[in-house]
Amino acid sequence: MLRLNTRDPGFEKAFRRLVRDRRESEGDVARDVELLLAEVRNRGDAALVELTAKFDRHSLASEDDWRISPESCAAAYAALDDDLRAALDLAAARIRAYHEAQKPEDRDYTDAAGVRLGAVWRAVDAAGLYVPGGRASYPSSLLMNALPAKVAGVERLVVVTPTPGGVANPLVLAAAHIAGVDEVWRVGGAQAIGALAYGTQRIRPVDVITGPGNAWVAEAKRQLYGVVGIDMVAGPSEILVIADGRNNPEWIAADLLSQAEHDPAAQAILITDDPLFADMVADQVGVTLSLLRTARVASESWNTHGVIIEVASLDEAPALANALAAEHVEIAVDEPEGLFRAIRHAGSVFLGRHTPEAIGDYLAGPNHVLPTGRRARFASGLSVLDFMKRTSFIQMSEKAMGAIGPAAVALAEAEGLPAHARSVAVRLGQ
Amino acid sequence: MLRLNTRDPGFEKAFRRLVRDRRESEGDVARDVELLLAEVRNRGDAALVELTAKFDRHSLASEDDWRISPESCAAAYAALDDDLRAALDLAAARIRAYHEAQKPEDRDYTDAAGVRLGAVWRAVDAAGLYVPGGRASYPSSLLMNALPAKVAGVERLVVVTPTPGGVANPLVLAAAHIAGVDEVWRVGGAQAIGALAYGTQRIRPVDVITGPGNAWVAEAKRQLYGVVGIDMVAGPSEILVIADGRNNPEWIAADLLSQAEHDPAAQAILITDDPLFADMVADQVGVTLSLLRTARVASESWNTHGVIIEVASLDEAPALANALAAEHVEIAVDEPEGLFRAIRHAGSVFLGRHTPEAIGDYLAGPNHVLPTGRRARFASGLSVLDFMKRTSFIQMSEKAMGAIGPAAVALAEAEGLPAHARSVAVRLGQ
Repeated sequence: MLRLNTRDPGFEKAFRRLVRDRRESEGDVARDVELLLAEVRNRGDAALVELTAKFDRHSLASEDDWRISPESCAAAYAALDDDLRAALDLAAARIRAYHEAQKPEDRDYTDAAGVRLGAVWRAVDAAGLYVPGGRASYPSSLLMNALPAKVAGVERLVVVTPTPGGVANPLVLAAAHIAGVDEVWRVGGAQAIGALAYGTQRIRPVDVITGPGNAWVAEAKRQLYGVVGIDMVAGPSEILVIADGRNNPEWIAADLLSQAEHDPAAQAILITDDPLFADMVADQVGVTLSLLRTARVASESWNTHGVIIEVASLDEAPALANALAAEHVEIAVDEPEGLFRAIRHAGSVFLGRHTPEAIGDYLAGPNHVLPTGRRARFASGLSVLDFMKRTSFIQMSEKAMGAIGPAAVALAEAEGLPAHARSVAVRLGQ
Repeated sequence: MLRLNTRDPGFEKAFRRLVRDRRESEGDVARDVELLLAEVRNRGDAALVELTAKFDRHSLASEDDWRISPESCAAAYAALDDDLRAALDLAAARIRAYHEAQKPEDRDYTDAAGVRLGAVWRAVDAAGLYVPGGRASYPSSLLMNALPAKVAGVERLVVVTPTPGGVANPLVLAAAHIAGVDEVWRVGGAQAIGALAYGTQRIRPVDVITGPGNAWVAEAKRQLYGVVGIDMVAGPSEILVIADGRNNPEWIAADLLSQAEHDPAAQAILITDDPLFADMVADQVGVTLSLLRTARVASESWNTHGVIIEVASLDEAPALANALAAEHVEIAVDEPEGLFRAIRHAGSVFLGRHTPEAIGDYLAGPNHVLPTGRRARFASGLSVLDFMKRTSFIQMSEKAMGAIGPAAVALAEAEGLPAHARSVAVRLGQ
C-alpha cells in the first residue's frame, strides 16, 4: 500500500505516476487472436469443435454438447434456494426498472424553414454476450449485460460461455432464464467471439457483442470492432473512496477490499483529510483481510496497488478524482452533493455513508459494467444505448428547398463536388 | 453497373454477394501504424518533426510552422465570398440547432424502496478532430465534427491536419473559425492521431478523436480505441435510392452520382419497381456523367459498384434495405412513411421526392458522419453523445439499505465475494 500526502513535496510526481499506471497487461496476444479468428471465419463449426476440445476439454458432438437448452436454464432457476431466487428476481426487477428509463426518445419536428427533421432509435437485431467460465462467471454480470439488451428490444440474445470439462455455472443459467436469453452456446475464448461476429453453420452472427473476458476475449472484441459493435475495453476493477474522519473504519475497509478481492490487479484508493482515520482504515484492512476467504487476492491487490492519499481538505479531492477518473467513487460524508458536483470523471458515484459500492454491483439498478483505466474521461457504463442505434431523417418540401437549397449548391461547388450541387440544383429548377 | 431482378432465380445468391462485399481495403497497414505510434509516444515532438518532413514535405520549425493561429482562421473567414460565407454560416446555424436538441437529460429520482438513483451527463474535457489534407479536405466535414463537440460543451477542441508543402485549405480554416476550434496543428497521418492520444511536449492529449482519414489514420484510431474514445470506423460512401417510376430520372441519376463522385469505391444502388424507369435512370447517369468534372471517379464507382435492383413491388424494398443497412437511403415516393417505418437499418433516411441526399451533407442539420459498410445495423451517426459520457449515481438511506441490502448480501455470498457481502452487511448492523 502506497501512502501519499498532498502536502509532501514529492506528491505531484508520485500522483502523476499513479494516474499513468494502467495496470493492464499489454501481452502480445494480438497475433494469436488473429489466427483464432481466421480459423473460425474460414472453417466455422469445425474450428469451434477443435478449439473447444483443445482449450476447454469439452467435446462438441451432440446438440446438448453445443447448447444449453432454455429448459435447463429454467430448471437451474427452479432449483435455487428460495432466498437466492428472490434475491436474483429482485436484482433483475430493479436493473430492468432503471434501464427502462434510459430508453431514448425519437424526434420528429418541422423547423422554421419548413424542413422536417428527426431521428428514430431502434434496437439491433441480435446481441451476443460473453460469460467467462470458472471463477469470474457471475450471475450478476449476466443480468447487467442481458437486461439492457432485452429492455432495448433486442429480439435475439445469445450467450457464449466456455464449459471447461463440460461444467456450467447453475447460477448463471438461472440468471439467463430470468433475463430471457434466447440461446446459450458452450464455446468460449476468442473463438466464441469470432463465431458471434462472423457466424458459423450453427451460430448465426450478431450485431453487438458485450461482456467481460480474459485478454484473448478482449483482444478478439477489439479486432472485430467495426464488424460488430462492442462494449468498452475493460481493465481491472477500481474504487476510490473519499471519506472524512467521521466514518466507521470497518465499513470503509470493507468497501476498499470489495474491489481488491476481484483481482490482484484491482486498485483501491482512499482519500481522506484525517490522518488518524487513515491509520485506522489501514489497520482495519489488515483485520478484515484475516476474515476473508478471498484474502490472498485482496491482500495482493491492496499491498501492490492500494493507496491512501491524505489531503489538507476534502476540497482537494475532486481534482484528484478527476485525474484518476475511477470506475467507482464513494463519497462518504454527510453532505456529498458539493463534492459530487465537482467530480467530472467517474464511472459511477456512491453518495453518503450508507452506500457501499457493492450495492451497485448487484441490485441498486444502474449498470455495474463501467469504464476502467481512466476511460471514464470519455466512456460511460453499459446502457440500453449500447444495444440501439439512431437513424436520422430529413424531409424537404419544395418551399424548404427554395429556402436552403441555394446555400447547399454554393457549398457543394466550393468543395468541388458537382454531382452534389446538381442533385440539389435540379430540384430548384436550375 | 450490376442489374438484378428479385424475380430472377439467381437473385438471392447475387444479392447475398452484394451484401457481403464491404469494398474496404484490408491492406496490412497495422504494423506500420504500430511503429509510427510508438515513435510519437516515445519521442514526442521530435518524431512529429521528422515524420512531417518525410510525409508532408513540411518543416515544423517556427511556431507558425506548427500551428495555424485563430487569427489566420478568422482572416480566412473574412476573405470568403459573401455568398459562400453566408452559406457556411447558415450550415453552422442549422447543424448547431439540430445537435442542441440531442443533448441528453440528467436523471435524479428516488424509487419506492427509498433508493436515490440517477445519471449525469458531462462533456469530455478535450476532443481532437482529424481533417485530411488534399482533395478530401472539406469545410462541411469540419463543421459536422466540430459543432457537436462544441454543443456538447467540450472546452478544448483541437484540429490536426496535414499541410502538404505548407498549404492549408482556406475554406477549412474559415469553418474552424465559425466552429470555434481552439487549436489547429499542422500535423497529419497516424502520427497526428498518436500525438492527440498520447500528447507530446507541445500538444496536450485529448479524450476523444473523430474525423475522416486515410487507411493509416483509421488504423491508428482503431489501435488507440480505449486509450481515447473514437468515432466509428468509416468506409467508402453509399447511397440506396428507393424510387417508383414517377420520379424525374435526371434527379435520381444526380442523387446516385452524388455519392459515386466521392470515391471509386463508393456505391450507389437504385431499387425500383419500374423497369422502364430503371432504363431511363441508367441512360441519364451516362448523360450526367458527361457533364461532371468528377466523371472519372464517379464513372469508376458506378461501373464497378453501381447496382440497379428491379422489384415486383416496392414492398420488397425494406427487407433489401435492411440487409444492405446503407449509410444513406432515399425514399423517393409520394407517401414515404410506410416504407420508412419498415426500414430498421440505415444511417440516415431522406424522405420524398424533394430530398436529395446532398442536402443532408451540407445543411439540413443532422450529422453527415454516418455508419458505412453495413454498420448501421449497430452504429449511429456522429452526435453530441460521442463527446459526452454518463456517470450513474446511487444514494442509499439506512431504511433503503434495510429493504434491499439483505438480497445483495445473499448474491455476494453466492458469487464467492465475501468483502462485497461484508461491505453491505456491516451497514445492516450484521
